[in-house]
Amino acid sequence: MNLLLLEEADFVAADRVVLRDRRLVHMQEVHRAVVGDNLRVGRIGGLMGNAQLLRLEAREAELQVSFDLPPPAKLPLTLLLALPRPKMLRRVLQTVAAMGVPKVVLVNSYRVEKSFWQTPFLEPEAVREQLILGLEQARDTVLPEIIIEKRFKPFVEDRLPAMTEGTLGLIGHPGDYPPCPRGLDEPVTLAIGPEGGWIPYEVDLLAKAGLQPVQLGARILRVETAVTALLARLF
Amino acid sequence: MNLLLLEEADFVAADRVVLRDRRLVHMQEVHRAVVGDNLRVGRIGGLMGNAQLLRLEAREAELQVSFDLPPPAKLPLTLLLALPRPKMLRRVLQTVAAMGVPKVVLVNSYRVEKSFWQTPFLEPEAVREQLILGLEQARDTVLPEIIIEKRFKPFVEDRLPAMTEGTLGLIGHPGDYPPCPRGLDEPVTLAIGPEGGWIPYEVDLLAKAGLQPVQLGARILRVETAVTALLARLF
Repeated sequence: MNLLLLEEADFVAADRVVLRDRRLVHMQEVHRAVVGDNLRVGRIGGLMGNAQLLRLEAREAELQVSFDLPPPAKLPLTLLLALPRPKMLRRVLQTVAAMGVPKVVLVNSYRVEKSFWQTPFLEPEAVREQLILGLEQARDTVLPEIIIEKRFKPFVEDRLPAMTEGTLGLIGHPGDYPPCPRGLDEPVTLAIGPEGGWIPYEVDLLAKAGLQPVQLGARILRVETAVTALLARLF
Repeated sequence: MNLLLLEEADFVAADRVVLRDRRLVHMQEVHRAVVGDNLRVGRIGGLMGNAQLLRLEAREAELQVSFDLPPPAKLPLTLLLALPRPKMLRRVLQTVAAMGVPKVVLVNSYRVEKSFWQTPFLEPEAVREQLILGLEQARDTVLPEIIIEKRFKPFVEDRLPAMTEGTLGLIGHPGDYPPCPRGLDEPVTLAIGPEGGWIPYEVDLLAKAGLQPVQLGARILRVETAVTALLARLF
C-alpha cells in the first residue's frame, strides 16, 4: 500500500478521517505508524495529498488530511478482456488499476469456461476491492470502469464499433501478424483473449468491429503477463 | 502448460518417453488426451518437437517423440533483481523464464527483509520447478541461469562491472530520471529494486558499476509487474 485511499464514509469533518478497517491494521503492522507521522493519502475519485496521524488506538485511528495533487493520468485505452479464470481475474483487476487502464470490458469467448461467470470475484464489491488494491499500489485514486458483457456476438457487433471509433483497434494475438506497435500517443482499443486465444470466428468479428491482430513474439504469456507486456509496449 | 517438457530421465529409448508425474495428470485432466493424440514437446535444454501418445494408463503414459524445432531466442539481458518476498519470488521466476530472460542475479538490498533469504523457495529444486512452469507456459526449453548473491556490495563492486561490460546498464527506478528506452537490439543489464526501491547508496554503487537510472512513470508497480513492463518496453 503506497497510498492510503479514503472513502467518503471515512470523513468525520472536511479535514478529518477516522479509520477502523484493514487500513488501520496496515498502518499499525506494516507502516508501524506513530502519532505525528505523515502518510500519503488520496480521496477515491479525487485528489491526493497528505495526512498526519492525530490519534492511534487499538481499534481506530484519526488523521488530519489535506489534498493538493491530481492523480496520475490514465492510459488512453479501452481494454477488452476475455474473462480470465477467477484467481487470475483478481490479479488482473489489480494490475489494470495499477497500470492506469480507465475502462475494461470483461467479455465472453468460446474458450472462457462457463463456470468462470459464476465466481463471487465478479460481484461488484469483490471487483472494487481488487481495483482499490491496484490503486493503492500505484498511487492513483480513480477507479477504472468495469463493464461485464456475457454475450460476445451482440457486444462485438452492436456496441464495440461505437467504442472503437476514433481509436486504433488492436487484438493481441499470437501468430503471423504485424508486431505490436510501440510508444503510441493515440487512443487504443485493445482486445486480449482467453488462455488458448480467441477462435478464428471471434478474431473475424473483432476485425469487422475495427480491431486488427498484432503479436508480441513466439512466447505464449499468461493473461496477466500479456496485459502488462502489451500496455508497457503500447504506451 | 503449452509445452510438455521432457527430462533425460523420462527417455526409455531415443524416441520414447514414459511419464508418471504431474505431466501425466495434466495430460489426463487438462488435455484429456487419448491414445493417438499429438502433443507439443520439448527436451530440456534442447529442441522442441512433437509427441504421439502411444499408451495411456492410470499411472503412466508412453509417448513417441521427435524433435526438429529450436526454442525461441532469449532476450539479450542480464536481470539483476533484489530478492522479492517468497510468494512473489515464485511468480517472478515463472515470469522471467516465460519472457526469455537467460540470466538472473538475485541480490540483497537494504530493503530486502533478512527472512526472505531463509525461504525454501530459494532451494535449487524449488527454483527449477518455477522456471519449468514458466518455460512450459511460453514454449521454451532452456532454463535461465539463476545466480544468488547474498551480499550487495562485494557483488556490485567486484563482479557486476565485468557482467555489465559491453551492455547498456539500466536501473528501473522511480523518480526524475530519463524514461526507459524502447525497442533495443543491444544487450542490456537491468537492475530492479525491492518493494520500496533501492536506497540512494545502492543506486550510487550500481551507477559506479555502469548502470544508470531510468523510469517508467509515476505509478509504482509490484515487482512482478515492473519486471514484465520493463522487459516489454526494452525489447
